[in-house]
Amino acid sequence: MIKNYRMVLEYDGSRYDGWQKQGNTEQTIQGKIEQVLERMTGQAVEVHGSGRTDAGVHALAQVANFHMDGKMASKEIQEYLNQYLPEDIRVITLEPAKERFHSRLNAQEKTYLYRIEMGERKQVFERKYIYGLYKSLNVEAMERASAYLTGEHDFKSFCSNRKMKKSTVRVLKEIEFEQQGSRLLIRYTGNGFLYNMVRIITGTLIEVGLGQRKAEDMKGILEAKDRNQAGFTAPPEGLFLEQVRYNV
Amino acid sequence: MIKNYRMVLEYDGSRYDGWQKQGNTEQTIQGKIEQVLERMTGQAVEVHGSGRTDAGVHALAQVANFHMDGKMASKEIQEYLNQYLPEDIRVITLEPAKERFHSRLNAQEKTYLYRIEMGERKQVFERKYIYGLYKSLNVEAMERASAYLTGEHDFKSFCSNRKMKKSTVRVLKEIEFEQQGSRLLIRYTGNGFLYNMVRIITGTLIEVGLGQRKAEDMKGILEAKDRNQAGFTAPPEGLFLEQVRYNV
Repeated sequence: MIKNYRMVLEYDGSRYDGWQKQGNTEQTIQGKIEQVLERMTGQAVEVHGSGRTDAGVHALAQVANFHMDGKMASKEIQEYLNQYLPEDIRVITLEPAKERFHSRLNAQEKTYLYRIEMGERKQVFERKYIYGLYKSLNVEAMERASAYLTGEHDFKSFCSNRKMKKSTVRVLKEIEFEQQGSRLLIRYTGNGFLYNMVRIITGTLIEVGLGQRKAEDMKGILEAKDRNQAGFTAPPEGLFLEQVRYNV
Repeated sequence: MIKNYRMVLEYDGSRYDGWQKQGNTEQTIQGKIEQVLERMTGQAVEVHGSGRTDAGVHALAQVANFHMDGKMASKEIQEYLNQYLPEDIRVITLEPAKERFHSRLNAQEKTYLYRIEMGERKQVFERKYIYGLYKSLNVEAMERASAYLTGEHDFKSFCSNRKMKKSTVRVLKEIEFEQQGSRLLIRYTGNGFLYNMVRIITGTLIEVGLGQRKAEDMKGILEAKDRNQAGFTAPPEGLFLEQVRYNV
């Protein structure tokens, strides 16, 4: 009998071309997992992630599901995956899900974490896991700017995909700032994120924090619906998919 | 005029065959630094570390010195090194030192840190920076065992070099335990450490913590002066050279 399985994944995205399989590129997270499942079952298995993560972006808790012949115990599948997956991809939990559960379609809310080093340097051990800005930021100005962005808006200005035909309206529920010494952590929670949206918002907020833009400029940027009005795309190494929430 | 320079280095040892240059192997920390200095000066420069670190062992603050023509400012040398060194080796500070300063011969005391994960798993981001034991340890028993090891002793049983002809007597000043949730950090401070000494002591203490040996067994192990009496060599990824202290 075919069963639906849901798993939570942690990965270091540094070596990968992102989550999504692309043609015959094997260097994607999705591709690696599907390879191992195919090796295990002798059949092609399609793994659905809650969403793509870009090249170099990490996950603390990506959620994915797949359908497979239900002969093996969940624990066995999880152990097999962790044995054959590269050590920078780990299956944290794996369990049977309801037949209709779909990790992307049923996702209600996601939280992304962006980490910035404002001090002089980053430790070598963290070089791939934090953005080395090495400049002080006016966090208060960034908080004021972020107030313009929370709520329901058309985030077209904060989307890299210029050919996006679907709606670019999203609800950005919360932008939270946390300072840990010389580090700034920004958490974005929303019902969905456009291509590069978190990184472009982060880049724009950084420009505000550096005094290159005013907090009030956010209003005009949103209204312009033009990617060129927003700031730079903050680099991938600072970004982590932290949580995906479901009602089911 | 030839000047003596002292620098503090941080490195991720994962990709390297340890600190010390070995024949024509270029994959050592010392080798990488000498290559860059040679590129900068057009001359061979020998870099002296405070001591070797093994393959896969990390440094939070290795100290090294070298002699070089004193035309460039220290800051320029440091910037040049950080520009051309791989990103897993960083020069934290670099300054002129007294003519007679020698990072190994003048070292008074060193502290090594060993990190153990006792919980179910380690994060992918830490996979190279902590030993995944995944078992609970009786830290109280390990503390009792470590009391036998502190002080001046012949540590021959805790040395991998069976052909060691020099004295194997060292002063192990302190062994400190710190629990951070499911992590155990052990800090070793002493006047010098034999080849693999920290890793063999750690392996032996882990066996005590697992109940495979008694704390009191340490006495006999020291007296035996036989490597086979001690425990396993704990893996390199948990080990960090944390500090080197000098009077000069």
